[in-house]
Order: sequence, then structure tokens, then C-alpha cells
Amino acid sequence: MPASPIRKLVPFADAAKKRGVKVFHLNIGQPDIETPKTVLDAVRHSDFKILEYSHSAGNESYRKKLVQYYSQVGVNVNHNQIIVTTGGSEAILFAFMACLDAGDEVIIPEPFYANYNGFAVEAGVKVVPITASIEDGFALPPIAEFEKAITPRTKAIIICNPNNPTGYLYSREEMEVLKEIILRHNLYLFSDEAYREFCYTGTHFSAMQLEGVDDNIVLVDTISKRYSACGGRIGAFVTRNNELIQAAMKFAQARLSPPSFAQIAGEAAVDLPADYFDATKALYQSRRDLLVKRLNAMPGVFCPNPGGAFYAMAKLPIDDADKFCQWLLEEFNYNNRTVMLAPATGFYGTAGLGKQEVRLAYVLNENDISSAMDCLEKALEAYVALIA
Amino acid sequence: MPASPIRKLVPFADAAKKRGVKVFHLNIGQPDIETPKTVLDAVRHSDFKILEYSHSAGNESYRKKLVQYYSQVGVNVNHNQIIVTTGGSEAILFAFMACLDAGDEVIIPEPFYANYNGFAVEAGVKVVPITASIEDGFALPPIAEFEKAITPRTKAIIICNPNNPTGYLYSREEMEVLKEIILRHNLYLFSDEAYREFCYTGTHFSAMQLEGVDDNIVLVDTISKRYSACGGRIGAFVTRNNELIQAAMKFAQARLSPPSFAQIAGEAAVDLPADYFDATKALYQSRRDLLVKRLNAMPGVFCPNPGGAFYAMAKLPIDDADKFCQWLLEEFNYNNRTVMLAPATGFYGTAGLGKQEVRLAYVLNENDISSAMDCLEKALEAYVALIA
Repeated sequence: MPASPIRKLVPFADAAKKRGVKVFHLNIGQPDIETPKTVLDAVRHSDFKILEYSHSAGNESYRKKLVQYYSQVGVNVNHNQIIVTTGGSEAILFAFMACLDAGDEVIIPEPFYANYNGFAVEAGVKVVPITASIEDGFALPPIAEFEKAITPRTKAIIICNPNNPTGYLYSREEMEVLKEIILRHNLYLFSDEAYREFCYTGTHFSAMQLEGVDDNIVLVDTISKRYSACGGRIGAFVTRNNELIQAAMKFAQARLSPPSFAQIAGEAAVDLPADYFDATKALYQSRRDLLVKRLNAMPGVFCPNPGGAFYAMAKLPIDDADKFCQWLLEEFNYNNRTVMLAPATGFYGTAGLGKQEVRLAYVLNENDISSAMDCLEKALEAYVALIA
Repeated sequence: MPASPIRKLVPFADAAKKRGVKVFHLNIGQPDIETPKTVLDAVRHSDFKILEYSHSAGNESYRKKLVQYYSQVGVNVNHNQIIVTTGGSEAILFAFMACLDAGDEVIIPEPFYANYNGFAVEAGVKVVPITASIEDGFALPPIAEFEKAITPRTKAIIICNPNNPTGYLYSREEMEVLKEIILRHNLYLFSDEAYREFCYTGTHFSAMQLEGVDDNIVLVDTISKRYSACGGRIGAFVTRNNELIQAAMKFAQARLSPPSFAQIAGEAAVDLPADYFDATKALYQSRRDLLVKRLNAMPGVFCPNPGGAFYAMAKLPIDDADKFCQWLLEEFNYNNRTVMLAPATGFYGTAGLGKQEVRLAYVLNENDISSAMDCLEKALEAYVALIA
């Protein structure tokens, strides 16, 4: 089981803070946006007397509410096609366990969300990465790359759209390419759409909107980023494939039920006003614009403009991202401030890739992003001189 | 992956209710006891603005509070020896995944909690049952039975104390026997103590109180039954084995964090007055006394007196428990009432065992238990005549 590539830097950040250094956290996807008050209030004003197990698939009232939510984003499902999960994490685990046997293979465009590795290990599944390049802004790798990677053990492809860690937003055309591949080889497509609401260039096209592949698609979802409700641990496993729902339900029943409190929060969230996301989206977009502009203005730095989510990947003039990120915390400060980044090596399945890349989460306000970019600029000057 | 043996009867119960038949649910361990108001109020009065991820091991403040709780029940641990999990379910899964490789074996005295099977399948682990008998009240099987079952692939033993489904409370002497076995063969002992507070005959002796086996013991725990807070989905993986904590933390980090709301509830629960459990325990005990008395008064029925938890196993004069439990829901009613029981076959790993046994959860008030026993008595008369 691999250790979390981001969490291993935490002791260095803690030590920096103990020395009195202010650390700007661009390393994790914990939004600073407030959870909508009505969502928290729904829990606070709840008046049940027994904190009971819910249905293993989640409360029926919540699943019916989710049907309404999905319909608003152009996805038509019924409540029996939804299993409420403990975070998006559990939805991914259920997808692996319900669709793949031990020894089967899953293809994932890299860089990818590092915890897919962990769930693959738990399910005994082999991750086969195919490489997306920063020069292309991390667009979907060509179909030939998928074809090369497919073996008789290949059972599924995972995409995250918009993408964590790259911020790339897959186009409808790219989704249609994926449809061709899964149809040709009879594969599942697991579509992780945790960041659906945060698209800045173009609109989101869900895998569930692909036609004629109902039995192949599993939507992996979560309320964590959508409503800044990461701690609720409420996600969803959604598919129109009835056999798959039956199979996933066995895993859902073994763990009894998803958390009850946050299901109340999730249910209330569907009733947020239609314009709720506008403000948050605008906020993220101006942060993105600031971050990307500042990064590309630094000598030797390249950062493609991400179309969605709240992450950017940047190529830096460095020798080793892990070393650099640790150095930022251990050795560097600028006016007693430094920045914590996620080395991209943890997001690649192919050893040796991502050594010059880092992921930045723009989950801080613009002032802090500015200060963090000041730090990074000075840090790169110093580091480049150091390794010259 | 096996389907839940209890949940498969649910459609028959639903159909009975639709026909207007009142169903007494003695089939599941969902207590009817109210969750303490102060515990729910802690969540209702919380005033954070962002529902954030907690630490992957759970909030430090909660883990420190748990140290205090464990100390009150005679178990000395520090907060770094505790990982807060998503229910006891996840603690079991972490124990399997952190301690056993695919293909390894775990010995469990049967009948046992059916979901151990599900988690074993998820971890690729083989369950090896050794049989406890209803005639002995489900005491620990003799040491020779363990010795016979141990192979080079055996890595762990699981006990649930007090036991679900049998209600059996293992004595200190039996725990010392288990200690001998795990020391002799260098095994882990996973001790599921979800029902610790509910012991009626004798006091609870925790596996964590065994001396000289710190590296071998994993305590699997939950607040679900303790505070009637099943929907919170908060449990704990506890061990003094530091390497094991590190290994389990990788799985904890992959799923990010346990639910935030219910950690607040769990933290508040530790501050309940010292006599909080007295009333609940007394309530369960008089229900137990009533249930066991009524059962043993029925012709051909034998029910050993359970020492703890809120379950009893009874041997009935029937041919097939699954058939009988379904018949109760499908064919039988007495004054338009019937009873839902859990067939014991689902709790045995050995095929063919438990066909004359059922589990009864005494999670209803005494009036309802009385009425349910009236139903069962009449049902047995009718069924015995039917199969004669």
C-alpha cells in the first residue's frame, strides 16, 4: 500500500510552522469557501431522536433529491440507480470491487488522483497509466495510446473530469473518443466528476450523457468540493447498469450505511438557489487567472491554463519536485513565509515522470495567492542558483 | 461477494406490511434507545463555517477524548494508538488489509457477525470457522479446535466480545487461552468490542487488558451501539503496535478522513455522566430476561442465557431457519401480527449449520417483545404441525 504522496510532507510543514514560518497551503484540495449556511443549518435544525442506520443505499428521500440535482445538470437517472457512498472515495472503491477481479487492469491517463492507487491496491487491481503531456495542457492521450495499453485483463478506464490534478476539462469530442474505446473493447468507464460545477472554459459534458453505453458507465461523485463539504463524507455511485447496482449493493450492505448527518446536509444542498455556484465559480476563476498569470511570468515556468476544478499543474526549472517541495518547507522562507506544493511525481504511475512538475490548488484568497507567488518566485531564483 | 443474509428477507417483510400485517423486528441490531440528547446537541450547536476534512486518523481532540474513555474502561492507550474509522465496519476492513495478505487465513468462532465475510472477500482473505455450540451457550471452542484449524497461512483470530450474534460474554480465562494461542503461533487477535457496555453476567475483560501481547492485539470498536448512534458511522481501530498503526494509516489516508459531524457527537459522548449506561443496561437486561424466559417456555425451544450484547440465539423445533423466517413473513400472522427473525445460517461459515437456529435482537420494548413472543409461540405450533 503506497503512502499518500502529499501527506508525507506534512511533518516538514509542521516543523516550519513551529519555527514561526507562515506556510501557504497550495498543496491540498480543501476549499476555503464556506459551506452554505442553509446546508449546515439543515443538520443543526434536525430533530430526530435516534441517530439510526440509513438504508445501505442512502436515504430514499436523499436519493430522490439527487435525481432532481442530476436532472438539473443534464443527467437523467432514477433513485434506484444511485448508491449514496461514504465520500467519493468509497464510490471509487465500490467501482473497483464491483467491476474488477483481483489481477484485472484499469487504464488511467496520468497524472491522476493519487488515491486511485490506494483503492486499486485494496481491490488487487493493476493500474496501467498512459501519459498525458503538460505541453498539450494534459488533453486526452491519443486513442492509439489506449489501444496499446489494452490487454485481455483490461476491464476499465478511469477519467476525472474536470481533472484533479491537472484542471483539464475533457471536451465532448474527447468523451466520444472514450465511448468508442469502451464499446470496442467492452470496458467500463469510471467517470469521477467531483469538480463538475467548476468549469471556466467550455461546459461540462458528463459521461452519463454519452448515448448507447448505459451498461458501461459508472459515475463517481461527491458533495465534498461542490458545496465545500469535504468532512461530510458523502458521495455517490451512479450507474444505469442494474447488475452493477446489485453488485455494488453487496459492498454497501457489508458496511451497513453511509453517514446519516451529512445525508441531511446533502439533501438540503440540492435546494440551494440556481445561481449558488456563480459566485464560487467566479471566485475560483479569478484566482486561477491570477495564479496562472503569475506562474507563467516566472522565468522557466510553464503552466497551461486549466479549464476546470481548482488545480493547476506547472513545470518548474527544477531537478526534483519532491526535493524542491521539501526544501521549500525545510530551508526556504521569504519574509518568514513559504509555500507548500504537491510534487507531481505522486500523480504519475510511470516512475521518473513529473520530476519537474508541481500541483497547485487555488483554495486561498487572491491576497494569499499573490503572497504565495511572491514566495515561489524568490524560491525558484534561489533554488535555480543552488542547483546550477 | 456474499449478499447480506438478513437483508434478503426485507422484501418479504415489506410485502407483509403492505398487506397490513404488523411486523415485529427482532432481526436487526438497530437499538430503539434514544441517542443521548447532549450527544446530538453537540452537533446541533456546532458553529464551524466550513465542513472540512478532519485528520485522516480523526480529530486529535476526539482521539484525546477517546483516551479518557478507554481509561475509564480499564484500557490504557494514547491518542496515537487510535485511528478513528467510518464505523466499526471500516476498522474491521483496516485490520484485514493492514495485517493480512490476499490468501491468508483468519479463524473465527462461528456463529459470527456475517459482515466479517464481506470484508474478508474485499481483502481477499479466507475465513476459517471453528464451531461453538449452542449446548455450551456458545463458549469459546476448545484450544484443540484452534490448533487443528491453524495453518501456515493463518494470520489472525477474530472474536466479538460480548458476541454478536450469540450474546456470549468471553471470560477472562477464555481471553487468556486466546492469548496463549496467538503467542504460540504469532497471530493477531482482532477483538470486536462493540457491545462492551452491555454485560449482564460478569464484567467485560478487554483483549487490550491482556499483558505481553501489545503487538498482537487490534481493538475494533464503534460508538454505534454504545450510544445508539449507528448512523454516525464512527468507530475506532486501536492498537499499541506502532507498525500496524502506520500500515493502517495508509488506508486511512487513501479515504481521506472519517465523517466530521459524528466525531463531534462521539467527543461529546465521552462526557456523559458515569451512570449513563446503568439505565440502558437495566433496560436491556429485563428485556433479555423476558425474551429468554418466554423462548425457553415454548415446547422444543432452547435459548441459552446470553451474558451480554442485545442478541439471543435460540434453537427451534424447525427444519430450516431460512424457510421458517420467510414463512413467518409470507404465510403467517397472528391477530394480523408477525415477527421478523434472522436465520442463523447466515452466521455460520460451515455450510449446513444453524438450520434450526435463529438470532433475536432485543431492541424492542417489553410490550412488543411479549407480543412478538406470542406470535412466535403460535407460529411454532402451526409450523411444527405443517412439517410433521
